[in-house]
Amino acid sequence: MITLTMDDARRRVAAALQRAGANAAMAESTARALVLAEAQGLASHGLGRVAQYSGHLRCDRVNGAAQPQVVKRKGAALVVDAQEGLAFPACDLAIAEAIRTAGEFGICIVGVVNSHHCGVVVDHLRAVTAAGMAGLGFSNSPSAMPAAGGKHPIFGTNPVAAAFPRRGADPLLIDLSLSEVARGKLMVAAKEGRSIPLGWALDANGEPTTDPKAGMDGSMLAIGAASSPKGAMLALVVELLVTALIGANFGFEASSFFVDEGNRPHLGQTFIVIDPGALAGREMFLDRLEVLVREMLRDDGVRLPGARREQLRRAAERDGLTVSEVLAQQLS
Amino acid sequence: MITLTMDDARRRVAAALQRAGANAAMAESTARALVLAEAQGLASHGLGRVAQYSGHLRCDRVNGAAQPQVVKRKGAALVVDAQEGLAFPACDLAIAEAIRTAGEFGICIVGVVNSHHCGVVVDHLRAVTAAGMAGLGFSNSPSAMPAAGGKHPIFGTNPVAAAFPRRGADPLLIDLSLSEVARGKLMVAAKEGRSIPLGWALDANGEPTTDPKAGMDGSMLAIGAASSPKGAMLALVVELLVTALIGANFGFEASSFFVDEGNRPHLGQTFIVIDPGALAGREMFLDRLEVLVREMLRDDGVRLPGARREQLRRAAERDGLTVSEVLAQQLS
Repeated sequence: MITLTMDDARRRVAAALQRAGANAAMAESTARALVLAEAQGLASHGLGRVAQYSGHLRCDRVNGAAQPQVVKRKGAALVVDAQEGLAFPACDLAIAEAIRTAGEFGICIVGVVNSHHCGVVVDHLRAVTAAGMAGLGFSNSPSAMPAAGGKHPIFGTNPVAAAFPRRGADPLLIDLSLSEVARGKLMVAAKEGRSIPLGWALDANGEPTTDPKAGMDGSMLAIGAASSPKGAMLALVVELLVTALIGANFGFEASSFFVDEGNRPHLGQTFIVIDPGALAGREMFLDRLEVLVREMLRDDGVRLPGARREQLRRAAERDGLTVSEVLAQQLS
Repeated sequence: MITLTMDDARRRVAAALQRAGANAAMAESTARALVLAEAQGLASHGLGRVAQYSGHLRCDRVNGAAQPQVVKRKGAALVVDAQEGLAFPACDLAIAEAIRTAGEFGICIVGVVNSHHCGVVVDHLRAVTAAGMAGLGFSNSPSAMPAAGGKHPIFGTNPVAAAFPRRGADPLLIDLSLSEVARGKLMVAAKEGRSIPLGWALDANGEPTTDPKAGMDGSMLAIGAASSPKGAMLALVVELLVTALIGANFGFEASSFFVDEGNRPHLGQTFIVIDPGALAGREMFLDRLEVLVREMLRDDGVRLPGARREQLRRAAERDGLTVSEVLAQQLS
């Protein structure tokens, strides 16, 4: 294991992405996001993605020359074209425009089309809370979960994120995928020869399975799927918000991220930024949020969403990132 | 059992609410909503609520003289004051304003404050789909569920609704509460002397329970709570969207709906209306939604959300509503 400063990690990641064909702006934006994820303990969205993104750049699944642009604007609604590049610079542009626009109209919706994997969705909303606003973020991903009652994968694990600023404290950062568990848990169970609970996955025939390998060939299930279709219904809502509504492709039209070969995924992200100043008023909003936080913290077991990530991020800013030598070598 | 036409049912419900103190506009809007719910087979939000709403009107938990108004407007963000009346006329006003405003700005957010129980949330979005737009709807309710990791109830069962128009077909109507099950399921289990699965409820000490009576004295749990905090995190997001953000009260500040005594609940509803014409374009949106619907219907087990409700509603329009004599007597 070796330790890198955050700055050094960012420089190395950006350089690796540029070697794979990304332009400087794309490489820098992506490096910031991956290092931030790694620093928060979110290894599945951290430095381990450099190899994947580089592979996609080299196999032309990602356009390294993309320069994201606002291609449509009506009042408080915008579309940003990611131009088939990595998602991060397009999301940066989308969020900056959304903050400005929500300041004018009270709310803004921005859709990012012709996009790719956007990493930790809630991290895109940090700038929103820094501007004193609340944000919602959604993305799709290559198909992994069936519709309610269905047997074959249609929706991605379709993350939902929300961020709310607090007065003099870290923002609330909520971020969850709509699958019952991450695919990684099936891989671990398969490696260890353990079975998985019903409700995690279907096999390739669409039947419930306790065999992790069969699940990996089939579909993941949505949250609470063992007892209710609600999670799958939420996945449908997210899918529509980030595809048909804005002009991006469905999860089932995109090739897997976990191979180099495949299409440009044309996935979508949708962000909704809301200015409390246009509704309750900023001071009232901040006052009332603290009332809710106090009520939540009356129970010892409650941890505010995002608190652990922020703690880890601060530790990494101070102490640097510890990464495996394999990873460090990829980055040098 | 007796059968009433939909019109007759509406007239009777409106008259009963006026006798309890509601003004004519409030009585008519509420009657339309309750009869519509009953017609869709949603008895828990149908005619059975007349007694509850009447009780709240008589005990002054609801202001029968309320005349909802837009009290704040900035660009595409609005606040409607329900003036402590029944929620329905305020939601009608909010939706009408939101459709008009989204037509101008591409999106609109409207918060309804000083509100009460808003019935079937997605029914408020039917007018949105009739205008060719997509809608999201959220509400809170008196506290029933703990925060993630918590032991005492804070959030309501906090429904989430979404509606999307289709070309030449019924809209997709998605509507779910964020509790694993409705409280009614505990009442049924208690009556029948059955235990309930872990993951449905906590007892009054905040411990998991399989005893339905203990659960009724404690808290309901959020979807998927047996294995993950995701459902409770979603309940937090909804709570903030409909309270601190717009200026309404938290679920834990409102008295139960199931008693006559108690405070005016000052709950909130938030609706977000989005014009696909400002994003993907209306024709593109409708085309693409059909692609998704076809993909979903490849699996025999998939039923489109809202399809069963629409079937029942059409049958009720044609054949009338069959209600118990007890209920019919309350309404005459």
